[in-house]
Amino acid sequence: MNIKPIFTPPPTAEIDARIDQVRHAMVKNKLDYYVSFSPDNIFYLTNFANTPHERPFVLVIPLQGDISFLIPKLEIPHVSARSIGELNLISYREFPAPIGESWLDGFHPLFTPGARVGVESICPLQVYEAIPGERIKLDVIDDLRMVKSDYEIGRITYASNIATEVHNNLLENAQLGQTLKSVSAEYSGQIMRKIIADYPETNIAATKFIVVFQPNSVSHDPHNSSNISIEMARGGNTTIINGIANGYGTEVERTFFLGAVPEQAKKPFDVMTEARQLAYELTVPGNSMSYVDEQVNQVFHKAGYEQNLLHRTGHSIGVTGHEAPFLAEGYDRQIEPGMIFTIEPGVYIPGIGGFRHSDTVLITETGNRALTSGPETLEELTYPVN
Amino acid sequence: MNIKPIFTPPPTAEIDARIDQVRHAMVKNKLDYYVSFSPDNIFYLTNFANTPHERPFVLVIPLQGDISFLIPKLEIPHVSARSIGELNLISYREFPAPIGESWLDGFHPLFTPGARVGVESICPLQVYEAIPGERIKLDVIDDLRMVKSDYEIGRITYASNIATEVHNNLLENAQLGQTLKSVSAEYSGQIMRKIIADYPETNIAATKFIVVFQPNSVSHDPHNSSNISIEMARGGNTTIINGIANGYGTEVERTFFLGAVPEQAKKPFDVMTEARQLAYELTVPGNSMSYVDEQVNQVFHKAGYEQNLLHRTGHSIGVTGHEAPFLAEGYDRQIEPGMIFTIEPGVYIPGIGGFRHSDTVLITETGNRALTSGPETLEELTYPVN
Repeated sequence: MNIKPIFTPPPTAEIDARIDQVRHAMVKNKLDYYVSFSPDNIFYLTNFANTPHERPFVLVIPLQGDISFLIPKLEIPHVSARSIGELNLISYREFPAPIGESWLDGFHPLFTPGARVGVESICPLQVYEAIPGERIKLDVIDDLRMVKSDYEIGRITYASNIATEVHNNLLENAQLGQTLKSVSAEYSGQIMRKIIADYPETNIAATKFIVVFQPNSVSHDPHNSSNISIEMARGGNTTIINGIANGYGTEVERTFFLGAVPEQAKKPFDVMTEARQLAYELTVPGNSMSYVDEQVNQVFHKAGYEQNLLHRTGHSIGVTGHEAPFLAEGYDRQIEPGMIFTIEPGVYIPGIGGFRHSDTVLITETGNRALTSGPETLEELTYPVN
Repeated sequence: MNIKPIFTPPPTAEIDARIDQVRHAMVKNKLDYYVSFSPDNIFYLTNFANTPHERPFVLVIPLQGDISFLIPKLEIPHVSARSIGELNLISYREFPAPIGESWLDGFHPLFTPGARVGVESICPLQVYEAIPGERIKLDVIDDLRMVKSDYEIGRITYASNIATEVHNNLLENAQLGQTLKSVSAEYSGQIMRKIIADYPETNIAATKFIVVFQPNSVSHDPHNSSNISIEMARGGNTTIINGIANGYGTEVERTFFLGAVPEQAKKPFDVMTEARQLAYELTVPGNSMSYVDEQVNQVFHKAGYEQNLLHRTGHSIGVTGHEAPFLAEGYDRQIEPGMIFTIEPGVYIPGIGGFRHSDTVLITETGNRALTSGPETLEELTYPVN
């Protein structure tokens, strides 16, 4: 498998191959058309990134012939500049618009009467209701996105290399009293500068990174970054870098210590490390995702942490930093080569803190290979205080 | 009307009044429940800002009794810290989750059998299909958001004051050769620092500003900020500041010149100014929004710019920087006191540039009042070159 970093937009052949796969799935499901509204799916098939607002962007894929992309008139140059592959652009004047010039006037004629039309689960009701014919909810594109091509692996490798380098800088320069706002500005700036230096045509609509840390006073609540003046603390901190570089994602996280490791942090750190090692062993082709999460959760249960779990073992990464499939109980799908997961079992104890490492991991033919890296042990992750 | 700036979260009475209004609309439409998935509507009714991802956040409002908020377990502390008003938090383990612990297991019991349930137009198909009973598409909350309370006007006034101040700094310090990336970093930084200095508990999930400019080589394409190394130019530039400060929005934009005004820019600038003056005259209580846009467009048509129009006269601002209602042909709603619109007619000529000023404007009992401000005339907007 390719793990040579790539930072340039997909060649037309890559986009064409993705569309061929969509059409294969359409044939299998006897669909005449597939309608995509999801900005992530549209980016995947066109290389054009949009942010949803009241002016709809809708992709209509017929079984044969041109793909139509319904867009606001305002966006024609923007779409033309970024999109890759053959697209029949159909623009509408504005939303709302006078009778005869609205998006629906351009949308309806794209379908032959009585057709079978595939629709995404996330399709908004107002678009769903506007689709003529028989509508079948089926997440064809989301399914295809789960297994990555060599090109996608190259793009995610590139994003992972940058995240790893900047994350190591952050750890090596970590000091008591550094604030969340200063760390966030400094290291997200480093990431952006590297991406732009490599690729000056960087698409800022598809390049976003979160760089934060949580000291142990709040890290039991892993989505809490509300106090941006909070400071790095002696008792333990968890870093979080997650984002997309020109549309392809990565994630790396570590729990680390400044000065010394509090006695009460040692057991949860060790149990997390044990759960993580088991996750690496089990996240291999052929295992079910559900099984991995069940087994990993057992490690925490046995250690008495059943009440201290907040999330699954991992999620996938692709054209977003967080997407299906999931290493999660209840998600009974087989792991396949070419999938990418975060491996990030964590344990959360109010008063002591959160304990979690995360890496972006590629599933190979025979096992897995981490695309991000960083220090791992308690010793490596204990840094001197100046 | 209050235009005293406010930057603190809504008092409980403000949230309660909004919910009362939702329930009045529910009675009028004979709804037993209303289901909200829109992050903007949920923020409006709870003060909690979420970013949609695969773990659904859903608000269920019964005609009487507690409002239920279905959230991932991971988000309980986060919701508790920010939300205002009485909420019955119902958490689910994870998405996906084992049988009996999924979001649907918590969602279904919230409804009595055979109820009439109101649903938003943007409701994703997978949530829509999970709602039991009779489902009626009706944008009750979006409708209420169109007329602002004194509190909301105070919040938008605050955001507008900051945007105006920083926008004036940007104009006064504008120089040939400044790059988009440096201008964007400097002035979005100024905005963020002011907001945080005023309100240290700032919610970064609800505080986002875009600060960009477009030189005349790209400003005919008003959504094009793709080249972040592009430089301020002699021939004319258009600024764009748009965003939300702790969840309440504003917008201010100007077309300005460095050194001198090119001869070919004078007519489009003057026509834009004339269209803008007419828009201010017409955007008053009692007029229809459609009528305003038609009349404003006539100014451009008469000047020969029929093919150079890309967007409507204005949009509203509230808990987002861009929302309904719209000053747009085809949008036949009456303007009411307490509404807020951008007034921003623009004209776009490839090779010459885009010409647009935008201000955030409050509709008063008798007319309107701009909440943002800046220089307006060609003379005021021509700056010396160092």
